Amino acid sequence: MAEFGSSRLINALYRRSVDRTPIWLMRQAGRYLPEYRQVRAEAGSFLNLCKTPELACQVTLQPLNRFALDGAIIFSDILVIPDAMGLDLFFEEDRGPGFFNPVRTLKDIENLPIPDPQESLGYVLDAIRLSVAELNNRVPLIGFCGSPWTVATYMVEGKASNNHSVIKAMLYDAPHLCHALLEKITEASILYLKAQIQSGAKIAMVFDTWGGILSSRAYFSFSLAYMKKIVQALKEDKAFQQVPIILFTKNGGQWIEEIAQTGCECVGIDWTHDIQKTRALVGHKVAIQGNLDPCVLYANPNKIREEVKQVLEDFGMGPGHVFNLGHGLHPDMAVPHVEALVQAVIELSPNFHTKEA
Amino acid sequence: MAEFGSSRLINALYRRSVDRTPIWLMRQAGRYLPEYRQVRAEAGSFLNLCKTPELACQVTLQPLNRFALDGAIIFSDILVIPDAMGLDLFFEEDRGPGFFNPVRTLKDIENLPIPDPQESLGYVLDAIRLSVAELNNRVPLIGFCGSPWTVATYMVEGKASNNHSVIKAMLYDAPHLCHALLEKITEASILYLKAQIQSGAKIAMVFDTWGGILSSRAYFSFSLAYMKKIVQALKEDKAFQQVPIILFTKNGGQWIEEIAQTGCECVGIDWTHDIQKTRALVGHKVAIQGNLDPCVLYANPNKIREEVKQVLEDFGMGPGHVFNLGHGLHPDMAVPHVEALVQAVIELSPNFHTKEA
Repeated sequence: MAEFGSSRLINALYRRSVDRTPIWLMRQAGRYLPEYRQVRAEAGSFLNLCKTPELACQVTLQPLNRFALDGAIIFSDILVIPDAMGLDLFFEEDRGPGFFNPVRTLKDIENLPIPDPQESLGYVLDAIRLSVAELNNRVPLIGFCGSPWTVATYMVEGKASNNHSVIKAMLYDAPHLCHALLEKITEASILYLKAQIQSGAKIAMVFDTWGGILSSRAYFSFSLAYMKKIVQALKEDKAFQQVPIILFTKNGGQWIEEIAQTGCECVGIDWTHDIQKTRALVGHKVAIQGNLDPCVLYANPNKIREEVKQVLEDFGMGPGHVFNLGHGLHPDMAVPHVEALVQAVIELSPNFHTKEA
Repeated sequence: MAEFGSSRLINALYRRSVDRTPIWLMRQAGRYLPEYRQVRAEAGSFLNLCKTPELACQVTLQPLNRFALDGAIIFSDILVIPDAMGLDLFFEEDRGPGFFNPVRTLKDIENLPIPDPQESLGYVLDAIRLSVAELNNRVPLIGFCGSPWTVATYMVEGKASNNHSVIKAMLYDAPHLCHALLEKITEASILYLKAQIQSGAKIAMVFDTWGGILSSRAYFSFSLAYMKKIVQALKEDKAFQQVPIILFTKNGGQWIEEIAQTGCECVGIDWTHDIQKTRALVGHKVAIQGNLDPCVLYANPNKIREEVKQVLEDFGMGPGHVFNLGHGLHPDMAVPHVEALVQAVIELSPNFHTKEA
């Protein structure tokens, strides 16, 4: 198809009728694919892979070459923004990402630059341009960033944390510091998403991996408020308002009504919330993305098909559903099982949409 | 007071009027207390501490000697049941608990004995008897066990896990195995809670730490159904039905209505759900325990007091509230901050209860 406005994924994001439910998968480009592991080995490090546009483009396209997915997502990481701010990102195998010089004081925060994406994140923009060219209008490319709160947790903690005690202490004891940091990340994220869209991304997604560790009050003021600023900044600008936005707070199903009120086109939910109840609450306002438990992929293909059917039935008839997992694929998942999942959505979902002439 | 029926905590659990909101804290006996660390060092290992009734009694009482708490909870661990089943429990500093021989096959499950608590868990019962004698009717003692699902996750995974992929694979691919294991743990848990009550525990709590990783459907059939069996077994027996039961599923606020329908007296909620909304949904049926974010304790005492007031205001006027954290205390929390929390509840909560003659 020539126009993205008529792509299945974008239609579903706008709750327009579609022939079947579109599907893409969080972390669809990743370690479960042998061809990814090969490119990753060539790159030497995860960060180097992100920073080499040709390789990032290559792994972005890999899952599309295997599965009939309805969207591609640029291969990158939510921590490229703090890295561009000079925070010296590192990735350790099995221990996750971290920063050698975490942000702790007002001075640390004041010293952070707002990166010009054309300069310090040019490698992502190049990877997007290459991927869009390679995709050649097959499916739209999704650009993304982390939510300011989620990015801030890594910047303040400095490393993977079980209880996020450093940033929580800051939140309760010095909320002005937290807000100052979140403002900066928000500003950087808006510039970054705009640059991704200008480079060819047709959808924007904000990943709020750690919003779900907050109390309701703290979530609204420290996470959702900043995601809303991002949405508003894109929507008030004619050059960007036509790009649908997906907001996803992991473990945030209890706040779905408030998330749906930000002006985004779609909310992602994980598998711990009922997609039927979610649709009843916000389906008149936004599309819903989700919500298969990724661990279903450890089961046999028949069971995978059964569980896919259950999610489709739970959402019910009609448009406004983007099929996805409730969280990313795990590295130890089997490729034929991912294949079975995608096939099940392709084969079973037309029954949930009205046939049109 | 001589009668536990008239203790503040038990009254609140039955939603009877009280002079102020009772408070106790999950992991109130633990590493944040210097006197705990001393006894723990004497004991040599965490498991040895659990298994030495005199020492377990001593640490059970420690927080009561510092703070005006309204309940004591027996110092033990949810994994003593699988340990009693012969699974060879180990605790590693900073890596959490595990088992050298995890349960994976039907044969593994069939081979598990249902432990007679008087024999293989006698050390817990002795610790309870000692603690009850020491408490001398000051406050009631809480007995507890893990939810069958939560205990099963450790038995099947064998060690701390990020995504619980082994038991999730079993759940989706071989649900009959999961159910067989859960049945056994449930039977053992019922015997164990009954024995704790016979030894002097006046309240029973079930900790469902990992129910919140399940989809709604899986939660109802693999976690809640078994907690309900435990509640029913206690309620159908005259010797035990007078003991109030608290069910707590971490990250389970979305299922609060179903949890409240099990016949338990009280539901625990964590800080990611709104206690006001929770009360509106189930407050006519059960008491509610919670739900301060434990990380509030990293803030200064004035802020702690503010946040305590917020939780009290959110719950609102009248009985049926047991003040607690939404999860356990962390080892790096400051004793004076815990003191500030307890004092705030004692000083502020009378305003939320009607004065009676």
